[in-house]
Amino acid sequence: MDNRPIGVFDSGLGGLTAVKQLISVMPDEDIVYFGDTGRVPYGNRSRETIIRYTRDDINFLLEHNIKLIIAACGTASSVALPYINDVGVKIIGVLEPACQAALKRTRNGKIGVIGTAGTIKSDKYAQIINSLDPAARVFSAACPMFVPIVENGYANTEVARTVAMDYLSGLKNEGVDTLILGCTHYPLLEGVISDIMGDGVELISSGSEAARYAKKLLDREGLLTDRRTEGHREFYVSDDVESFVQLGGLFLGREIELNVHRMKF
Amino acid sequence: MDNRPIGVFDSGLGGLTAVKQLISVMPDEDIVYFGDTGRVPYGNRSRETIIRYTRDDINFLLEHNIKLIIAACGTASSVALPYINDVGVKIIGVLEPACQAALKRTRNGKIGVIGTAGTIKSDKYAQIINSLDPAARVFSAACPMFVPIVENGYANTEVARTVAMDYLSGLKNEGVDTLILGCTHYPLLEGVISDIMGDGVELISSGSEAARYAKKLLDREGLLTDRRTEGHREFYVSDDVESFVQLGGLFLGREIELNVHRMKF
Repeated sequence: MDNRPIGVFDSGLGGLTAVKQLISVMPDEDIVYFGDTGRVPYGNRSRETIIRYTRDDINFLLEHNIKLIIAACGTASSVALPYINDVGVKIIGVLEPACQAALKRTRNGKIGVIGTAGTIKSDKYAQIINSLDPAARVFSAACPMFVPIVENGYANTEVARTVAMDYLSGLKNEGVDTLILGCTHYPLLEGVISDIMGDGVELISSGSEAARYAKKLLDREGLLTDRRTEGHREFYVSDDVESFVQLGGLFLGREIELNVHRMKF
Repeated sequence: MDNRPIGVFDSGLGGLTAVKQLISVMPDEDIVYFGDTGRVPYGNRSRETIIRYTRDDINFLLEHNIKLIIAACGTASSVALPYINDVGVKIIGVLEPACQAALKRTRNGKIGVIGTAGTIKSDKYAQIINSLDPAARVFSAACPMFVPIVENGYANTEVARTVAMDYLSGLKNEGVDTLILGCTHYPLLEGVISDIMGDGVELISSGSEAARYAKKLLDREGLLTDRRTEGHREFYVSDDVESFVQLGGLFLGREIELNVHRMKF
């Protein structure tokens, strides 16, 4: 039993899709969230910069006496985590849980992965999938416009559909039957992506899978809280609180309580 | 006469559209450019963060013994410059030159301004225009998707056209005859914007106007170089050099020579 909070970080707001799922599967756990809104997005930045920013994010969470860190950011998980050494608590990225889920659900062994430019360039999703199942075939596509489309309110528009067609048609033609949404912003484009890929293609939300995986891990290691009251959630951002509160509800699927704080690097 | 370089900064690559014009009007001047590519974009960030980043940019340029600073970023110019005190050298933003040019060219006194969310929220373009001519009418629109559209290669596509229609139709209906491109990325969308606004509407590039204004200022103050050889240009970025070199040519309209350096905040 461990009553310390779970730490979650993301480059910005996307990680809230993982928090939503965390709250759903472990409502009693305390959560400390950090969104690096002052430096978002990470997806197009260099490896060196993504590693540096990810270290900052982790160090910030470590100041909050957390029992586990979830890197709820596809870019940080794929580009930076392989370079982060032991920090004293376990760190879960969004890749392994999503890869395991995809392998469980695919029927034809053809798995698609979409993510930011940095995530796709790292090739980490394909590496993990093939280390678990060398016979699986992985097809990937970078979707650099998806984050700005979501953040600027274009998620359910013709613009989103047109851009998604550009990005997804190759994967569709390859006949993937499972598609990993390798960036925690992408569940907000689920409708559009699903329309294009068709009913036969199962979408895997990397944030949701990481949340479920976190529960299993904490359970296995005896680290779940023994409190039976709604967990306390604390949010920190590196830009102003106001816009986080405004947009955050969209990702979290509920009003964020007012315990949002501003920090500075 | 002053042979020190001109310092130019931007949140990222957009300011290169001003550098292009600077090279055209003052080919003999040395230029030191800083693009904050590790923290781009500024347009959606809070005022406090934009001010802090702008101060960092200016302090970096001040280390390079420059004679003048051009804030070749609409967001930094409108949101942060009003809060930056005397730093020892003159700082030119992109607002005043563009406002003066717009007032010179408008025939019906209706001027449109487009920019990032931060720029439009600051209302600075309208304030400056009306301080110069209280009778002028200013109509403005935030275009937060334009920067990602340019940076992700969607400038000449149906996506750009659709988004531009959303953003510009209000200004078109108001009958503006002059439109200030209040962000230094926007000249790369000139074709699309011009198609929508129509032939009768003159587009003002804020970066180009700032470059011309800089020449007049240096000339008036006797600070132009007396060298008659092609100026030396030095570029600094806060993320990796490679992607700057790749995308930079698009903005500069020529290959960037290889004197691009990486710095870290």
